Amino acid sequence: MSLLTSVDARPSRVDDFRVLLDEALHDFLRARQDLAPELSAPLRDLVLAGGKRIRPTFAWWGWRAAGGAARADAVVRAVVALEMLQCCALVHDDVMDRSATRRGRPSVHESFAARHRHRRWAASARQYGDSAAILVGDLALAWADDALVTAGLPAEALMRAWGPWQAMRTEMITGQHLDLLAVARREESLEHAVRVAALKTAAYTVERPLHLGAALAGADEETVECLRAYGHDIGVAFQLRDDLIGVFGDSSVTGKPVGEDLREGKRTPLMSIALSRAQGDPAAQRLLRRCLESGSVSDRTVEDVRALLVELGAVAAVEEHIQVLAGSGLAALERATIDDEARHELVRLARRAVTRTT
Amino acid sequence: MSLLTSVDARPSRVDDFRVLLDEALHDFLRARQDLAPELSAPLRDLVLAGGKRIRPTFAWWGWRAAGGAARADAVVRAVVALEMLQCCALVHDDVMDRSATRRGRPSVHESFAARHRHRRWAASARQYGDSAAILVGDLALAWADDALVTAGLPAEALMRAWGPWQAMRTEMITGQHLDLLAVARREESLEHAVRVAALKTAAYTVERPLHLGAALAGADEETVECLRAYGHDIGVAFQLRDDLIGVFGDSSVTGKPVGEDLREGKRTPLMSIALSRAQGDPAAQRLLRRCLESGSVSDRTVEDVRALLVELGAVAAVEEHIQVLAGSGLAALERATIDDEARHELVRLARRAVTRTT
Repeated sequence: MSLLTSVDARPSRVDDFRVLLDEALHDFLRARQDLAPELSAPLRDLVLAGGKRIRPTFAWWGWRAAGGAARADAVVRAVVALEMLQCCALVHDDVMDRSATRRGRPSVHESFAARHRHRRWAASARQYGDSAAILVGDLALAWADDALVTAGLPAEALMRAWGPWQAMRTEMITGQHLDLLAVARREESLEHAVRVAALKTAAYTVERPLHLGAALAGADEETVECLRAYGHDIGVAFQLRDDLIGVFGDSSVTGKPVGEDLREGKRTPLMSIALSRAQGDPAAQRLLRRCLESGSVSDRTVEDVRALLVELGAVAAVEEHIQVLAGSGLAALERATIDDEARHELVRLARRAVTRTT
Repeated sequence: MSLLTSVDARPSRVDDFRVLLDEALHDFLRARQDLAPELSAPLRDLVLAGGKRIRPTFAWWGWRAAGGAARADAVVRAVVALEMLQCCALVHDDVMDRSATRRGRPSVHESFAARHRHRRWAASARQYGDSAAILVGDLALAWADDALVTAGLPAEALMRAWGPWQAMRTEMITGQHLDLLAVARREESLEHAVRVAALKTAAYTVERPLHLGAALAGADEETVECLRAYGHDIGVAFQLRDDLIGVFGDSSVTGKPVGEDLREGKRTPLMSIALSRAQGDPAAQRLLRRCLESGSVSDRTVEDVRALLVELGAVAAVEEHIQVLAGSGLAALERATIDDEARHELVRLARRAVTRTT
């Protein structure tokens, strides 16, 4: 179904936006598949395999909040850029973390390496897989910009959106590096962990997408500020929820290994709080550090650390912090002079972001 | 010195453009250094370490050829994008090829890995180095788009330039992948090797930069076609010259190891021609294949292969092909209705591209 014929009948609610977005995403990739067939196929697979489309969704509601029309094909096409950017982040992240799976399937570098082995190609399968995945990510990043610029936006709207767009890309990349540095430098401070969450998730996932959408609609400074304040707080809360899911999530729901974050030694605010509360308890500290530093822990250790995180009150502290952030984020939204339907959806999105289980 | 005060006094010849471009490059990076200090420093070092600035130079003369003004600050700022894109290509290429040096210094992933080892950071130095370099390349790619979009071009000029800009990025990335595939699949055909050279070098280095510059100036279709034909032929000739330098170049001039391409087993048109001419000479074929497949060859083998390439007439055939392409490229330029000074400079650039020794 083409975008032009499909928009009229639909009310603009979150799930309806999702349908329009998916059509635009597929149209975008279909139009380009012949340009780079071997590198674009994994992008299509990644997009088809699911994902919450959270960044384009926040961008859309930023647009609507600031008075943007409920039917706006060019804006739907423009926010495809955010999903393409996320494809780059996922593909490169999996190379960096050496993750074998993504969305329940082999990660991109693993697929290319497997093909190399299967066909008995020359030289190193791992090096070929990593290299091809680096190129797939690069293509996604270049195409993200193409999606935004060729969406058919009025020139002034595009230029207004470019400020948040360039900030978002730089913040996301910088946040990724801070995350690597945290592991390398054995960072334990809560301050550092929250800074990473603010850059890597809040800015990239909620605050800047909202900002971009609002900028497209020509929002005034005050509206942008309220939306960004909401985005920052809900974004950090979203990451804190993600950290809890990464430790306690049900693998049958998340599609990820049980206690994945513990196995990867992620330096989350949750772990910082736990370490700080374990001062004076050398056995507890040893257990936490074993997780953070070994790079591989047993199922038994995962169980023990989960129990310890609850016992130390770290889980309760993070849950409390999520509530505080949700409250302050919603208060910022309350102050904003925005479209009523958008306000309603943004409240719903905030609740979903902070209470979800996957 | 600011761009605004410095342009007046200078005639717009190749070396003068280079001065303006370097100022614009440094201004661009300086304005952004605080946004991502640890990731932008290696980009600045890479830019300061040299490079021929060949892509922005062809873009500039594409602009001038199509009647663009000799003083055009926004265009100089816009073509900074091509040098940032090249930074991404170099940094990611070094990760993919596992090259330890670039422009006579440690490559970006090597520098980050060395810092990791020096500071005795946690986990794998190689993994950290590769990951940080992937992010540095991503940043360069995102900033390339920022450079083009925020250069201050009129909106119509930017939209005209986007066609060649999106083609260039996709072709460069696709060409890189074809190059990886050639090694993996043990490609030996001349046809495949020339196709890689056309995408990876001709399109990315000469044809599309010229196209982009001409599009900025609003060139008509015929002018664009002549410039692209010139760009394609001179670009392939440039790559063929590069292949000869990669095998026979003086390492004191090139700053690269002697016979680097032979050591890396590159699948160049030169090697395809040699393999084809060595049919019926099993010893010669074995020697060539040892280069292409071993991944590491001795100094003695490098000497032997060099002698063989001359003996088989492969070097003479490539030299001849370079002459043919230079001739057809210059003939296409002859047909174009373009600015006289630009024509003169494009002839000079073509000569330099095909006769250089580094």
